[in-house]
Formats: sequence, C-alpha cells, structure tokens
Amino acid sequence: MIKAVLFDLDDTLYPSSKLAEAARKNAIRAMIEAGLDVDLTEEELYEELQEIVREFGSNHPRHFNLLLRRIGRDPDPKLVAAAVVAYHDTKFAYLKPYPDVIPTLMKLREMGLKLGVVTSGLAVKQWEKLIRLGLHHFFHTVIISEEIGVEKPHPRIFLEAARRLKVKPEECVFVGDRPDRDIRGANRVGMVTVRIRKGRYRDREPKNEEEVPDFEISRPGELLDVVRRLLRESEGDGKD
Amino acid sequence: MIKAVLFDLDDTLYPSSKLAEAARKNAIRAMIEAGLDVDLTEEELYEELQEIVREFGSNHPRHFNLLLRRIGRDPDPKLVAAAVVAYHDTKFAYLKPYPDVIPTLMKLREMGLKLGVVTSGLAVKQWEKLIRLGLHHFFHTVIISEEIGVEKPHPRIFLEAARRLKVKPEECVFVGDRPDRDIRGANRVGMVTVRIRKGRYRDREPKNEEEVPDFEISRPGELLDVVRRLLRESEGDGKD
Repeated sequence: MIKAVLFDLDDTLYPSSKLAEAARKNAIRAMIEAGLDVDLTEEELYEELQEIVREFGSNHPRHFNLLLRRIGRDPDPKLVAAAVVAYHDTKFAYLKPYPDVIPTLMKLREMGLKLGVVTSGLAVKQWEKLIRLGLHHFFHTVIISEEIGVEKPHPRIFLEAARRLKVKPEECVFVGDRPDRDIRGANRVGMVTVRIRKGRYRDREPKNEEEVPDFEISRPGELLDVVRRLLRESEGDGKD
Repeated sequence: MIKAVLFDLDDTLYPSSKLAEAARKNAIRAMIEAGLDVDLTEEELYEELQEIVREFGSNHPRHFNLLLRRIGRDPDPKLVAAAVVAYHDTKFAYLKPYPDVIPTLMKLREMGLKLGVVTSGLAVKQWEKLIRLGLHHFFHTVIISEEIGVEKPHPRIFLEAARRLKVKPEECVFVGDRPDRDIRGANRVGMVTVRIRKGRYRDREPKNEEEVPDFEISRPGELLDVVRRLLRESEGDGKD
C-alpha cells in the first residue's frame, strides 16, 4: 500500500539544468557588455565556465573570478558584478516549477499521501529554492544531503525520509531524474521508483539493473496515473 | 574651476539605511512565518540582529545563522533560507536611486564635468549595487576602498579619485552623507564639500571644524545649484 511520494528536487520539480545554462550564458554576455575584451567567443567562454563548474563544483562561490583568471585576466570586480547580477536575475526568472507540479502535489495530498523531498546539496541553498519555487508548504518533510552527511544513492538518506514520514520504504514512491542517484538508491531500499525524463540526464540509459525504474514518465502530471494504478493494485491485493 | 563631481554611494545616491532596515525586518518576519517560535517580539529580534551587524560587520555572510545561535536555537536551514529570500527580495525592491539622481547626473555630464564614485566596501558588492541601480554608465571612475586598501576619510582614496580623473583635488566637488568619513576626508585634501542630509547620519552634527561642509543639501537635485554657483564664481575669478 503506497503511503508516501518522495521527490528529488533539481530537474524533477523545476528545470534546473535549463536554469543553470541560461544563467551562465547570460552572465557571460553581461561580462562582455561590461567590457570584457577577449578573443574567445561566447560559446568558448561558456565551455570554460562549464569546465570550472565541473572541476570546482556547482556550489563554489567564485566561478566568475576563476573564469577571468583562467583566461589570463585579473578578476575585475566590475565584470564579476555584472556576471553575478545577470546570473541571479536569470536564475529568479527560471526558478518556477514545471507547469503541472503544483496541481499534481495538491492531488497527491488530497489522496491522503505524505509528500517529501530528498535532495542533494547545501541545506540553505536547497531551502531557498523550495521557498522561491513556492513549494515549501507542500511537503511533510525535506531531507537535504548536507544535513544527513550522505549523498544519494546512499541508502541512509532514503531510509531517513521513510522514517520521518513514519512509513516503510516499500510504501514509498520515489520520483527522480537521475538513474545513478535517484533510481538506483530508491531501488536498493525497496521503494517503487519513477523516473522522470527531464533535464540533462533525460537521454541517459540505465547502466545496470539497479538503475532501471519501475515506471517512466515525461512530466510530473503523469505521476498521478502511476500512483492511482499502484493504489488500485494494492486494493486488489487487500481483497485477495 | 570645478571640473569633477565625486559621490559617495550608500545613502548619498540611494536609500541604503532604509533598505537595510526594511530588508532585515522582513527577514525576521519571514523567519517567524516559517516557524521560528520564540518569546521575543519582532522588534526585539531586530535589535539582536542590529547588534550582530554592529559586532560582526555588515558584510558578514551569516547574520541569520548568528541570530538563531544568539537566541539559543540551532541554525535551521529552512529559517535561514526564509530570511535570505525575504532579505534579497526586499533589497532589490529598495535598490533604486533617489528620484532626482539620474536627471542630476545627466545634467552634470552635459555641463562637461567628470563624475566619479568613491565608496567603502567590498568591490564586487559595490559594483553590484551600481549595476542594479542602473548608475554604472554615468561615472568616469569608480573607486572602492577594498581596491585601494584604505577607507575614507584616508586622504589616499580621495587623491586617487582626482588622479584618475586627471584633475586637481581643489577642482573636485565631493558629495557625501557622513561628516566623519566623507566631509572630513574631502575637506582635508582641499575638495569642495557638499553634505547631503540623508540616511542614518542625517541629524548628526559635525564634531569639529574638519567635519563642517562647504554646502549642505537635502536632496541630490539641489547639487545643481551649488555647482552652477561654483562655476559662476570661478568665471568671475577668471575675469579679475
């Protein structure tokens, strides 16, 4: 019997990859407008920036300083500020849930299900996203890897979510975009897994059995059919 | 002969004190709304926060964490995020120049004067404000204490502004709100000083001769009369 639905956050509830790409590209344009004079194209500068993000992590606080150093420039504070302003303005413009997220969460709550978020990242940053997305009131629990000390796919973070909602792992549906983190981790603790084909992992195929989800959806609204079917099936079980 | 006008930034070109007060009060309200359960009133929490700002400086990155610790709470990331979101949203709403700033700067440029900003703080943060205020294109130079290594009223930061604009200090008008930093510093290097009665130093009286300005104004637009008068006087001098 399904009693709870757990969600990954980035690329599962809002277009995180698209946001990051647009924000970084606008930041680069803003640096050029503010006077960055360089032989590289916008696209080449973007590639350099992507490499910095890969090397130093997406939460490093000084990507634009590093970019200027990397292309042999002093980190001119005017250029850095222009990039920061463009990055933030773009981020806030894109920080909206996918269109069917809120009606779907509402329906799931009306069906009597507990809802949770299980996400990787810095606690304050992930909460900031939930608040800006207007989603913070929908969830009974929010679990962030920084607070637990382990990242997905570690079983502990999934088990902690079930524990906080007072349900068993097998009573949980887990919805996420990443086969390697979300699906693998939730499969290992016995949750029902739903992969959403969104964001930069959209076309990534499962590498092994553990990464194969029980269901696949292409937008959050389709989750309702999955959950209804699971509930019907368990009713059927009950009657047997 | 006046050839340049230099401006302090915070509380001289936009309502910095009002912004900080509104942003901090809204941050406290947001923490209470997000579930902060405490015996202190909003006003008392604001006083605690003000004390943190005085003790740790306005550029400390974790005021809201410190506030929670100070009142004996764990720094719950949900509460911190709620405060951060409210603080930033309020900040952006208030980050507008005083209504007559842009027409005044435009007129001063049309009069053939060089314009500069001389401000204390972190370089990227001060540039971010100028960009968000839409003022970054108006100035021929921007000098930020972090880049020079001294704060106002140190003479070096004022002399550097004159040097960059290729004018003598006595050819500069300096406009600022703080008698102890702006007026004293600019007086000492022989600039013409204009005190603007704005922000939290509005009612502070000069403590000594060095803090007494040549002119006082209550809004930026009044600067035009001062500058016109100075230009007329120096024309008079020329004819003598």
